[in-house]
Amino acid sequence: MELNDIYAPVKEDLVKVKKTLASISHIDYQWLSEQLSHLVRETGKALRPALTLLSGKCFKYNFEYLLPMAASVELMHTATLVHDDAIDNAATRRGQATINSIFGDEIAILMGDYLFAKAGEFVADTQTPRVIKLFSQTLGIISSGEINQFRGAFNVNQSREEYFRRIYGKTASLFSLSTQSGAILSHATEEGVTVMKDFADNVGIAFQIVDDILDFTSTEEAMGKPVGSDLIQGTLTLPAIMLTESYPEDNPVKKAFETRDPKYVTRAIEMVRNSGIIDKCYEMASEYCEKACRNLKSLPRTDSRQSLYSLAEFVLKRDI
Amino acid sequence: MELNDIYAPVKEDLVKVKKTLASISHIDYQWLSEQLSHLVRETGKALRPALTLLSGKCFKYNFEYLLPMAASVELMHTATLVHDDAIDNAATRRGQATINSIFGDEIAILMGDYLFAKAGEFVADTQTPRVIKLFSQTLGIISSGEINQFRGAFNVNQSREEYFRRIYGKTASLFSLSTQSGAILSHATEEGVTVMKDFADNVGIAFQIVDDILDFTSTEEAMGKPVGSDLIQGTLTLPAIMLTESYPEDNPVKKAFETRDPKYVTRAIEMVRNSGIIDKCYEMASEYCEKACRNLKSLPRTDSRQSLYSLAEFVLKRDI
Repeated sequence: MELNDIYAPVKEDLVKVKKTLASISHIDYQWLSEQLSHLVRETGKALRPALTLLSGKCFKYNFEYLLPMAASVELMHTATLVHDDAIDNAATRRGQATINSIFGDEIAILMGDYLFAKAGEFVADTQTPRVIKLFSQTLGIISSGEINQFRGAFNVNQSREEYFRRIYGKTASLFSLSTQSGAILSHATEEGVTVMKDFADNVGIAFQIVDDILDFTSTEEAMGKPVGSDLIQGTLTLPAIMLTESYPEDNPVKKAFETRDPKYVTRAIEMVRNSGIIDKCYEMASEYCEKACRNLKSLPRTDSRQSLYSLAEFVLKRDI
Repeated sequence: MELNDIYAPVKEDLVKVKKTLASISHIDYQWLSEQLSHLVRETGKALRPALTLLSGKCFKYNFEYLLPMAASVELMHTATLVHDDAIDNAATRRGQATINSIFGDEIAILMGDYLFAKAGEFVADTQTPRVIKLFSQTLGIISSGEINQFRGAFNVNQSREEYFRRIYGKTASLFSLSTQSGAILSHATEEGVTVMKDFADNVGIAFQIVDDILDFTSTEEAMGKPVGSDLIQGTLTLPAIMLTESYPEDNPVKKAFETRDPKYVTRAIEMVRNSGIIDKCYEMASEYCEKACRNLKSLPRTDSRQSLYSLAEFVLKRDI
């Protein structure tokens, strides 16, 4: 199933979210306005706003508040990407040149801050202190997680537990904000909010595991960034941890981190591809997706609930 | 009058604000916890939280909500400083080594983001969508203003109007959030909120004019950063604009920006010091302070109102 079909129950409202996102470029400073308009046009898969709307649709859908909320989660995502690219010195993202590569780190820092501010304005428009607090807590989880990741870079001695904590912060926490806020703003019961949290926490982890797999198995053309980027940046992901577990004494991940020589990155990619590691990673991702869906049955049987099941499948099958 | 005396009506509550600020270092990640504890200990003059509390004291003082609000404005200020220092490559701030100089720009970016998140959590604790929205709008004004400043760096053709707009964004906007939120959270009338906005907008501009004067007249020892920092970073401030107006064809500011040779910075400082420019700048700052105070008389006669008058005087007389 394609994303377009999965998004069907909220398709028209997602268009309105994109229009709302585009509106942030209507500001006085001409240069900034142009850059923002470019940035918010490239929304990629728009997974997070879709999660907010689909979650809301499972309860008393309240689009007046879901609209700014959906815009807010997408903008928070964009802001973190702008800062991440500056931190990683990334040249491209989604096949496009990054802000830092075009205008320098200084502008990337300030542009990210501006996007956080706009995300904060949108979330304030929900008039709902509980989701506003959750929004800020999520940003805290994301940024403290990134600090931890940056400080642990090029360290081969990281456990699976640390990895899962890291990807929770990096990806699942924002998925979780997206579905929880959708539920809260649509007057879900506490049980309903928990079902949505559980779904997003687990799908988010599966999504990031697959992301980390693709960094080994995909192509630069499909990803819009070089294969092996994680290893190049010293980020130890699940496939690399498994390779290290299999060859604790002598393995190319360790050498890649020690020497920063790209030939070891290439070697690590080959070894991972030619081992059973990829299958094992997909199995783990699949388990998280099953966990994600286990309580969905308690929700009313709607198209949106079906979309959440399909989304969990999509996460496993996606190739970008 | 010293700041301690000015703060007298809210002295004990300011201590509680500082304790609340210190609490943000109680987190799981040990390294981050240590850095945060260091960062929030150095609150400098704590002007912004004091403004929030003093403003609140002029109405139905509501400390339960003013406490997180005051913590929030101080943290937003700290976050912007951490990012600014990374952008400016600043080595010291308040006489201390900056985060970017110790740990690099990457950690400075993420630490700033984390502080924004914590500021956002505190403001959410006010449970008041109006101040939450104002908080995010203020961050938007600050960061878009900084983008404009960065892009205008080393450009000698900037008008006084542009300068005033810039320093409004840089300084007055956060002063304004501080007093307005204090008033709103203490159930001020709309008129009361406007009086507080007016006060802070104008005192904030005066404060920044004096800051820009001190960059010409003070010493590295007193400021905790090199004299002439603004010119070195290509920031055109009021004294530099006035010097340029006096010598439109040939002046050291223009040469400093064109050549980046520090000898022209030294020359510009000398010329400004030996001219009537400093007096004229102080006159303008003084006019803003008068404007700030013109409507305070409509407030009940309290110690806190007196403190606001004294604060407007302090802003002009301060040497750090």
